[in-house]
Amino acid sequence: MPAKTDQRALNDALQAVSGDRIAARITELARIGGLADGGVSRLGLTPEEQQARDRVAAWLAPLGYDRRHDDALNLFCATGEAPRVLVGSHLDSVPDGGRFDGALGVVCAVEIAEAAQAAALSLPLEIVAWSDEEGARFGTGLFGSAAAFGRLPPSAWERRDAQGASVSDAAGALLGRAPNPVACQRSLGEIRAYLELHIEQGPRLAERKLPVGIVSHITGLSHGCVRLTGRSDHAGTTPMDARADSLAAAAECVLAVERIARQSRGQLVGTVGEISVAPGAKNVVAGTCTFSLDLRSTSDAVRQEAVRRVAAVIKEVATRRTLQPGVDMYNDVPAAAMSYKVVSALDRAATQLGISPLHLPSGAGHDAQNAATAGVPTGMVFVRSTGGSHNPGEHAASEDAAQATRLLLLAVVSLSQG
Amino acid sequence: MPAKTDQRALNDALQAVSGDRIAARITELARIGGLADGGVSRLGLTPEEQQARDRVAAWLAPLGYDRRHDDALNLFCATGEAPRVLVGSHLDSVPDGGRFDGALGVVCAVEIAEAAQAAALSLPLEIVAWSDEEGARFGTGLFGSAAAFGRLPPSAWERRDAQGASVSDAAGALLGRAPNPVACQRSLGEIRAYLELHIEQGPRLAERKLPVGIVSHITGLSHGCVRLTGRSDHAGTTPMDARADSLAAAAECVLAVERIARQSRGQLVGTVGEISVAPGAKNVVAGTCTFSLDLRSTSDAVRQEAVRRVAAVIKEVATRRTLQPGVDMYNDVPAAAMSYKVVSALDRAATQLGISPLHLPSGAGHDAQNAATAGVPTGMVFVRSTGGSHNPGEHAASEDAAQATRLLLLAVVSLSQG
Repeated sequence: MPAKTDQRALNDALQAVSGDRIAARITELARIGGLADGGVSRLGLTPEEQQARDRVAAWLAPLGYDRRHDDALNLFCATGEAPRVLVGSHLDSVPDGGRFDGALGVVCAVEIAEAAQAAALSLPLEIVAWSDEEGARFGTGLFGSAAAFGRLPPSAWERRDAQGASVSDAAGALLGRAPNPVACQRSLGEIRAYLELHIEQGPRLAERKLPVGIVSHITGLSHGCVRLTGRSDHAGTTPMDARADSLAAAAECVLAVERIARQSRGQLVGTVGEISVAPGAKNVVAGTCTFSLDLRSTSDAVRQEAVRRVAAVIKEVATRRTLQPGVDMYNDVPAAAMSYKVVSALDRAATQLGISPLHLPSGAGHDAQNAATAGVPTGMVFVRSTGGSHNPGEHAASEDAAQATRLLLLAVVSLSQG
Repeated sequence: MPAKTDQRALNDALQAVSGDRIAARITELARIGGLADGGVSRLGLTPEEQQARDRVAAWLAPLGYDRRHDDALNLFCATGEAPRVLVGSHLDSVPDGGRFDGALGVVCAVEIAEAAQAAALSLPLEIVAWSDEEGARFGTGLFGSAAAFGRLPPSAWERRDAQGASVSDAAGALLGRAPNPVACQRSLGEIRAYLELHIEQGPRLAERKLPVGIVSHITGLSHGCVRLTGRSDHAGTTPMDARADSLAAAAECVLAVERIARQSRGQLVGTVGEISVAPGAKNVVAGTCTFSLDLRSTSDAVRQEAVRRVAAVIKEVATRRTLQPGVDMYNDVPAAAMSYKVVSALDRAATQLGISPLHLPSGAGHDAQNAATAGVPTGMVFVRSTGGSHNPGEHAASEDAAQATRLLLLAVVSLSQG
């Protein structure tokens, strides 16, 4: 526990946390990549994301924070001596996304720095804005944190966007030189703990009328791309039993993913969210069909068994229908349990503030899982959100964000003394 | 039967039919909209299709044929007194299509004119190149023949391509003035019969090693567009039982179309060849899914019953999964039996030439069905094709095309005397 004089500074700092300042800064960031419908398109590894980082660094400079970025375009702003508590989230959005997803976690981290400064409370604090969390442009989500925590396969730098530019090209354009992937890795000895605040991307807090949640686990996920190659045939002249219809085969697979997830009794979710066919004409049997796989569970064993079952269904369907199956499971992120030490610190902070947070798993992936998997003591706080997420209507109330910021501030103090 | 002198001229004309000239003209047309892979992109109602019409008219002018076009851009070139026998096909292709589909029927009609001219055989003959048979740009197949035979709904002129141009705009750009839809309709009293030669868009002639087939029926078809509106949700945070997944619902419908067609025991084919989802991201449950329906049968009753069953499945699936269904069956083309008189003339011609043609239904739609439905005595001849259709590999041998042209020539003579 802090000493007497520190306790007074801490109380002053809790008082200094300002929901209005948080709201004003969310509005300021929302202008960068802002859309007419109130939404935001601020994709990772673009000049807009860089502009948002510059804004955050400009807020922190007068508070005495040094600015640094690595070759993955992560922004780190530090004060005090290492090891520090690392706090932050990301600044990129999905196309036509909302203003809170990611940005709120960075703005609230800056608010901890503001409140500490106002109360003359010194903290060994490092604020981070991870780059390209959404992976909207290159398909590699959690990019910056993966690079920093040694979880990024080298091939990720060569992934290309729809225009043919690679991740390396995009990073190089922002750096003004070719990026050096190896230089991104953080020394874990510098980091006491990692804390991330994020809007809940689900309805549970709102349903229970609770402002704040403490994350227990982040689900693991498998992402894959399936291509079924059959044969394009004329829709009028090809008898039903002479077809190798890739879309009909894909339809069986889509329903199998749903069935396998339903049979898990809440342990697994499974989604096919993308599909396309070629040639894609109403009067031509679909020759090839490509679709995505997204399987998530807090249990890696349950998820891996589901991946095996889905792959077996795809193989059986393809054999029976005389198609060539291609399955590329290109992403396998293990489930991450949050640190007992960090969750305990958050629980004690909640008691001090007189709030009863919900403990809940995160179905969405977060940069926090890269920190946790790398062995950094990690915790996450969710803020109640209405209007879902990844759309212009997502919304977190400024008083909820302020309360969650106080929770984090208390946890930072506690963890910086541990 | 023709008189003695006529019989001599007819024999000379049969001798004059040249497979080499047919092949050379197919090659000449294939340069218009020709692609590096040997295929052709010569879409309907474009300057390329117009250029092909100009080429055909230029071949016919020295043979004494008057040129005329209507406001739907159909090309008609006539000789002799009305009523005449109308012979032809279309000059447009699908994107990256082949050089024979459509074009072969026009080139072989011109070859009848060449052969008759060479043998001084006078025939009351009109050669036609129907515009925009494929409907690749505007989605309205059999456009020109529908306009000429009073089968085109006025709304078809307002259909728009992906760039927002309407059929009226495209026709107007080629005419140099606004088209007048009413002026397109042909007087049926001018037409003794309609004959069309086309490559078979299926494998039956090739499988049976037969050069020529005589079409018995053209299947009727129903085209529709289905839109299922569910709800976009985060793929990680939305429990399986809280989803309104439009793609999973569509998968059930795709399989139902296939099942209903299979249960028909060869009386019906059903195809979903186009599908798209929005927002279309791997980590987002598909909010809306749009897909095409293509149902064909030589029995209108069987087809209409299938349309009803498919619509009922869509409604049941949407209700059970809490989605909004939208079904737009925008095209209903009745099956067309070929004329007994014309088929008999073709049968007699086959006997004269010593060939045993296969009688077969056409699963693909053709301009001939608009003529038949309007009451014109109509017949079709199929030429063996290897490599399927609607792709650069489609191929008809010039000797097969020449033999089919002789069959048509004999039928034209017979029908012009009936």
